Amino acid sequence: MFDRVWTHANLATMDGPAEAPLGVIEDGAIAARDGRIAWVGRRAELPAPAAEVVDCEGGWLLPGLIDCHTHLVFSGNRAAEFEQRLAGATYEQIARAGGGIFSTVRATRDAGEEALFAAARPRLQGLMAEGVTTVEIKSGYGLTLDSELAMLRVARRLGDALPVEVVTTLLAAHAVPPDFPGGADGFARHVAEDIIPAAAGLADAVDAFCESIAFSPNQTALVFEAARRAGLPVKLHADQLSDLGGAALAARFGALSADHLEHASPAGLRAMAEAGSVAVLLPGATFMLRETRHPDIAAMRAAGLRMAVSTDLNPGSSPARSLLLMLNMACTLFRLTVPEALLGVTRHAVAALGLSDRGVLRPGLRCDLAGFRVGRPAELCYWLGGNPCFLRVVAGVPS
Amino acid sequence: MFDRVWTHANLATMDGPAEAPLGVIEDGAIAARDGRIAWVGRRAELPAPAAEVVDCEGGWLLPGLIDCHTHLVFSGNRAAEFEQRLAGATYEQIARAGGGIFSTVRATRDAGEEALFAAARPRLQGLMAEGVTTVEIKSGYGLTLDSELAMLRVARRLGDALPVEVVTTLLAAHAVPPDFPGGADGFARHVAEDIIPAAAGLADAVDAFCESIAFSPNQTALVFEAARRAGLPVKLHADQLSDLGGAALAARFGALSADHLEHASPAGLRAMAEAGSVAVLLPGATFMLRETRHPDIAAMRAAGLRMAVSTDLNPGSSPARSLLLMLNMACTLFRLTVPEALLGVTRHAVAALGLSDRGVLRPGLRCDLAGFRVGRPAELCYWLGGNPCFLRVVAGVPS
Ligand SMILES: [Zn+2]
Ligand SMILES: [Zn+2]
Repeated sequence: MFDRVWTHANLATMDGPAEAPLGVIEDGAIAARDGRIAWVGRRAELPAPAAEVVDCEGGWLLPGLIDCHTHLVFSGNRAAEFEQRLAGATYEQIARAGGGIFSTVRATRDAGEEALFAAARPRLQGLMAEGVTTVEIKSGYGLTLDSELAMLRVARRLGDALPVEVVTTLLAAHAVPPDFPGGADGFARHVAEDIIPAAAGLADAVDAFCESIAFSPNQTALVFEAARRAGLPVKLHADQLSDLGGAALAARFGALSADHLEHASPAGLRAMAEAGSVAVLLPGATFMLRETRHPDIAAMRAAGLRMAVSTDLNPGSSPARSLLLMLNMACTLFRLTVPEALLGVTRHAVAALGLSDRGVLRPGLRCDLAGFRVGRPAELCYWLGGNPCFLRVVAGVPS
Repeated sequence: MFDRVWTHANLATMDGPAEAPLGVIEDGAIAARDGRIAWVGRRAELPAPAAEVVDCEGGWLLPGLIDCHTHLVFSGNRAAEFEQRLAGATYEQIARAGGGIFSTVRATRDAGEEALFAAARPRLQGLMAEGVTTVEIKSGYGLTLDSELAMLRVARRLGDALPVEVVTTLLAAHAVPPDFPGGADGFARHVAEDIIPAAAGLADAVDAFCESIAFSPNQTALVFEAARRAGLPVKLHADQLSDLGGAALAARFGALSADHLEHASPAGLRAMAEAGSVAVLLPGATFMLRETRHPDIAAMRAAGLRMAVSTDLNPGSSPARSLLLMLNMACTLFRLTVPEALLGVTRHAVAALGLSDRGVLRPGLRCDLAGFRVGRPAELCYWLGGNPCFLRVVAGVPS
């Protein structure tokens, strides 16, 4: 006896072989018991009855989608700055007027956890409405010990309050706060010596922004060594604006992922593949920044690198509130194939978070499902806007 | 006594002077009587009571949004083709396999009006959910007299069945049907002599696709002359892939609009401005086709041309189901300013449809409203995805 069965569904298990990775089962069914997937297969072969049967009327079921790179906890937004830039203001004028990332830092520090929670919740709910069941949330707009921990607590609270699993990442090494004495070197040391040890239990991983405008490879290594001492896996914002060797650095530390990668070298990408790191592609940022340099997808394929796709939801470079839209942008801008894009928000996104209990439809794993009213999975990549999600299940429970 | 009043709203009347076109009224109110706007102003100055008061709690109200260029009635979709192209198939291979526009034509001819209606309804409802209250719908996937009229009837039925105003456009001159004897010349004559006269009452305007792969300027002129005889205004898909002088041709016929315009010459744009034609920008198609040639916005501004922004919702070049996303894309890709983009889905979109009873918040006009939970109107352009619409009013009635 199963707890619940979804029938008359077409399944994309995302668990197929390399030549057919969607793992399609037409006219299928999936059964849950105790929050786990108990059985997956053709409807006609369902082996046992269930306490509850849900008729999906021919809709497509996928593993619950995973957004593996967001900065969705923040206060304020930068719509005014967006408007000013279009009206002709330069980045310098905006920075002088108090804009840019530090306007978000100020607003976030001042907000208080209650207000941060209230501001982030609708953004998270928007992702959930598209069938997202696991979301990574980074800190990085506090840039003080107290405010970074506050951001992580808010992220944890969001996961407790809503039917979605939140994975947290400490990104204290996001930018060098102008009010910190000691510059980038000093702040990297502060992150390594003080903030990372204090984040134990609140952060599931540690991330850094390795770029000329943020932290050097050496400063990043200092942060990563502290993460290692704290027993935390690492991720990296790498090679977005220039090639500082971020991909290779991430690989050297066995990073779960390196993200952005527009300027990463083929050698760096090969090192990542050997280390088992995932390449996280963030087409929303590419689009909003009008970057003409795109990640080297051909080199990633040649290296056998796993690719994930994510919103990078943040108030500056990627105010992207739709993971489905990122599927389209990954295909349209980066020419990912449909299977590559869909693996990027399921099986490979899970790897970018270091999880192994979800992301494919397979007995024994968490029963996280996303159901879509589409004729074929490719429609999830094809439409620009719109939301065909009709079903969302978290740990076996419809929500 | 008003029928209904919306208070505690910030208003963007879209009726301001050139230097501040949003016409912002903070802490405003708007009152309706008999489906029309009866009063607009500051809340403290509201002159009379109302039978019903709606507290907008600080949300922003705009005129109901207008999507002035869609092809949303069609059967099937081209997700499989999208998938094949990403997997490496050429356009020729896809055409040989029965893909491209004629696959949509076949599916649409075969569908029957009931199925066409059912397929189109959720697409229209998706636009409506974002605050759209007026939608133009073109025919053009029938390409026979009977099937073009069927598409127009379905479009009219959608407007009757849902709380949205549908404006219909006959686009029989969309493509040359391969099964029509006589080629482009013959089909243009058939459109002019047979289809346009038969569409009287069903079509509010006539459109054509003037392009080397469709109809020449002379063939287009033949169609436009027939429209003139039938008393119907014209619009034109002009200069999208090459400069055939479409903008000037549209101007010569006093077209309501010319649309796309990526390759239009400055002289053609000036002619449009003199004729009072509107330039309809379709950034979804630019994005999906990865066009590097963009409409010449600087020349449009210099000419004083009014610009509208629309989805072009269609199954081939722009499967765009979100007008808000088009606002972002018009800003990000074409560098429209925020006021230009917002005028493009309100005041200028109305002009592209030849209407004068809506598109701004002004006493005497239809009370069509869209309410958004945002801090400032620029947020409607800034976010990528997400839908902050909390209120939708059609002819004074919340829906
Ligand atoms: Zn990021
Ligand atoms: Zn069109």
